[in-house]
Amino acid sequence: MSFKTTEAIEAMKVEVCNLHAELLRWGLVTWTSGNVSGRVPGTDFIVIKPSGVSYDDLKPELMVVTDLEGKVLDGDLKPSSDAESHNHVYQLMPEVGGVVHTHSPYATAWAARAESIPCVLTAMADEFGGEIPLGPFALIGSDAIGKAIVETLQGHRSPAVIMQNHGVFTIGKGPKAAVKAAVMTEDVARTVHISRQLGEPVPIAQQNIDALYDRYQNVYGQ
Amino acid sequence: MSFKTTEAIEAMKVEVCNLHAELLRWGLVTWTSGNVSGRVPGTDFIVIKPSGVSYDDLKPELMVVTDLEGKVLDGDLKPSSDAESHNHVYQLMPEVGGVVHTHSPYATAWAARAESIPCVLTAMADEFGGEIPLGPFALIGSDAIGKAIVETLQGHRSPAVIMQNHGVFTIGKGPKAAVKAAVMTEDVARTVHISRQLGEPVPIAQQNIDALYDRYQNVYGQ
Amino acid sequence: MSFKTTEAIEAMKVEVCNLHAELLRWGLVTWTSGNVSGRVPGTDFIVIKPSGVSYDDLKPELMVVTDLEGKVLDGDLKPSSDAESHNHVYQLMPEVGGVVHTHSPYATAWAARAESIPCVLTAMADEFGGEIPLGPFALIGSDAIGKAIVETLQGHRSPAVIMQNHGVFTIGKGPKAAVKAAVMTEDVARTVHISRQLGEPVPIAQQNIDALYDRYQNVYGQ
Amino acid sequence: MSFKTTEAIEAMKVEVCNLHAELLRWGLVTWTSGNVSGRVPGTDFIVIKPSGVSYDDLKPELMVVTDLEGKVLDGDLKPSSDAESHNHVYQLMPEVGGVVHTHSPYATAWAARAESIPCVLTAMADEFGGEIPLGPFALIGSDAIGKAIVETLQGHRSPAVIMQNHGVFTIGKGPKAAVKAAVMTEDVARTVHISRQLGEPVPIAQQNIDALYDRYQNVYGQ
Repeated sequence: MSFKTTEAIEAMKVEVCNLHAELLRWGLVTWTSGNVSGRVPGTDFIVIKPSGVSYDDLKPELMVVTDLEGKVLDGDLKPSSDAESHNHVYQLMPEVGGVVHTHSPYATAWAARAESIPCVLTAMADEFGGEIPLGPFALIGSDAIGKAIVETLQGHRSPAVIMQNHGVFTIGKGPKAAVKAAVMTEDVARTVHISRQLGEPVPIAQQNIDALYDRYQNVYGQ
Repeated sequence: MSFKTTEAIEAMKVEVCNLHAELLRWGLVTWTSGNVSGRVPGTDFIVIKPSGVSYDDLKPELMVVTDLEGKVLDGDLKPSSDAESHNHVYQLMPEVGGVVHTHSPYATAWAARAESIPCVLTAMADEFGGEIPLGPFALIGSDAIGKAIVETLQGHRSPAVIMQNHGVFTIGKGPKAAVKAAVMTEDVARTVHISRQLGEPVPIAQQNIDALYDRYQNVYGQ
Repeated sequence: MSFKTTEAIEAMKVEVCNLHAELLRWGLVTWTSGNVSGRVPGTDFIVIKPSGVSYDDLKPELMVVTDLEGKVLDGDLKPSSDAESHNHVYQLMPEVGGVVHTHSPYATAWAARAESIPCVLTAMADEFGGEIPLGPFALIGSDAIGKAIVETLQGHRSPAVIMQNHGVFTIGKGPKAAVKAAVMTEDVARTVHISRQLGEPVPIAQQNIDALYDRYQNVYGQ
Repeated sequence: MSFKTTEAIEAMKVEVCNLHAELLRWGLVTWTSGNVSGRVPGTDFIVIKPSGVSYDDLKPELMVVTDLEGKVLDGDLKPSSDAESHNHVYQLMPEVGGVVHTHSPYATAWAARAESIPCVLTAMADEFGGEIPLGPFALIGSDAIGKAIVETLQGHRSPAVIMQNHGVFTIGKGPKAAVKAAVMTEDVARTVHISRQLGEPVPIAQQNIDALYDRYQNVYGQ
């Protein structure tokens, strides 16, 4: 392995490790229930949280490095029990550099009713370009979840999917973008939920969703 | 530019920068989704948050200074993508010295249903002098939002407006007053929402709203 | 004034000042919206928060000392605009040594519907000995609120009352007990609200309420 | 008492004391309303929180050591008023090394309606292996609560029970596992509640619950 790759792996361990603090900060995770992974740029090495380790105890050197098939290349601990799902996404979507999984409460509440989250907020149009789609029930322990994530994301602009009875998976160019998508998923899942508690939110016309999405992807930020 | 103006601009950068911490503290914003601006007293210089910069990374020297048309006079970053809306308010309301925009969840939930927030709390009568009015759906990227804010605020005592499917804009004599209005908007939006979940809140008679508003504006505080 | 009284006043300033942090910590207050007062033991001096001062800026030396009629005896600032209500309670209830006022969201939501909070939790039976009663709508700026608080508390074991469209007032032997009552009021207001969102909570038989209240008042704690 | 036992008691005091911070951190307790206990491994000594002491003031040396009948063996304070219930669980379930009691709001809301929490989340299948069962109303001050906890847990995989009108009791191999169960109980109680606010969550087939539970108990973690 080249020196440059080794450096990139170490940098990704730091980034993936630290991003877990954002899951806590924005209220997306409880105890050890969510995880972040990142693909080391220019490689097929995946850096992911170890299984069942509390967020307080995470350190970059505890992160697990695997190949796309989940074989551990570096690290003394077992990878997250969701690693198979992350890896399947990385295999099928080469443009993805980060994956996040949470059971964030409002988004998971939609998922438990098997309902996608309708696009009734300009912030949803900006970030998700439409609804946040629903994926099917799938059991952990095979490639079923990963396949369902990829199939559900196809045909949507959304970088997030909610999996029935389960929780949220998000993707991004890198792990930070995937974390942002997870944070915004819970934010809009909550606001739309609260809105619907007292009536029906007003839909946004498709042409306005398109205009907002286009602008946000191209004009927003630095 | 006089030395005094330069000093006033620098002071406003510090104030505007620091007030973003209040948005976080009171739960009004997620990731980078809200912004504060202030008019430098005695000038038409506007100080506003840069676009897409995380709250942790804000420093006074990153604040952007523009004129009322949004031309950047000072700062290396692009201003908030909501700057056009802020500026339009400053143009049309010379008495306004601060503007705040958030997607705070309870207030935005009312906005997604296109409902104004009824005045059923003495704290609302105090601060808002009546309902918090609803503005129309308007697309970002022109003066449409700014115009709608100003038109909606006319004929109401409220320093806050909720914009359909979008979120909250508040005004104040300075940025701190606008932040206070944003914080109180979410507070009353939440309490009235919770109240209506289990029945209909009791209205407050107009004469009592008037008495409370008058007293609060004239007697409260130091 | 004796040296001992002066010392007791200074101690009460520290206690009252610091207890405001508990209102923040338990989510009872927003911006400057709640206040604590205490009667200096063995005197009719009342120590109360100054009006409109942010919790971050509170210091013991900013607390205001008044007599039972609200005349400021010590302090450079105006007392809380709720001082009249606090004082009226102290006048009519000599056993009360602390009063707290908040607009805590769940309790105020019950108050906005003009509903008392039914006793359906053993923790409510423990602390409140029954329902948390509802007081009438009353305007600030006279003794109307104070009188209504006292009248409503009579005939109830509860140290808390919710005032229609307004918020919560609690009493205690001292300010810390009144703060505890305010904290527990919001806690049970929230749990009973959540419970009722999906059906009707099961009532607790009066004899069991009595048994729980008696035990808690006499056995609990050190 | 052997030196080794003394050491084990002191270690358990530190562990039990510190775990109370987790109850606060995850929002399970208000003021002094929850408690943790642990059985010193290899003994029948129970370490438990003292009654009515605020979480800020807890120190390992304030923890109370009792035998299984609740006789205080070490400590200057009275044990938690829930000690009788904890002890009864330890007496009847020798495999239990930790017990936690809270009034966490969402779980207690289910308990106030006398409804068990249905298993509609994969995270519930993982942790609880099915529903979180409901125990009957029982008065504090005898072995009634402890007996009801044990009876209700029998015939369920769940390490948590919600007691009607009261709150949550959880068990574990040690106090940390019991705290985890209490944290996850509130997490799933909240998500299932939110889900049911807008419709009926989709049930998970029993065979899938079995598969998830089996995997989580045997594969998850390090």
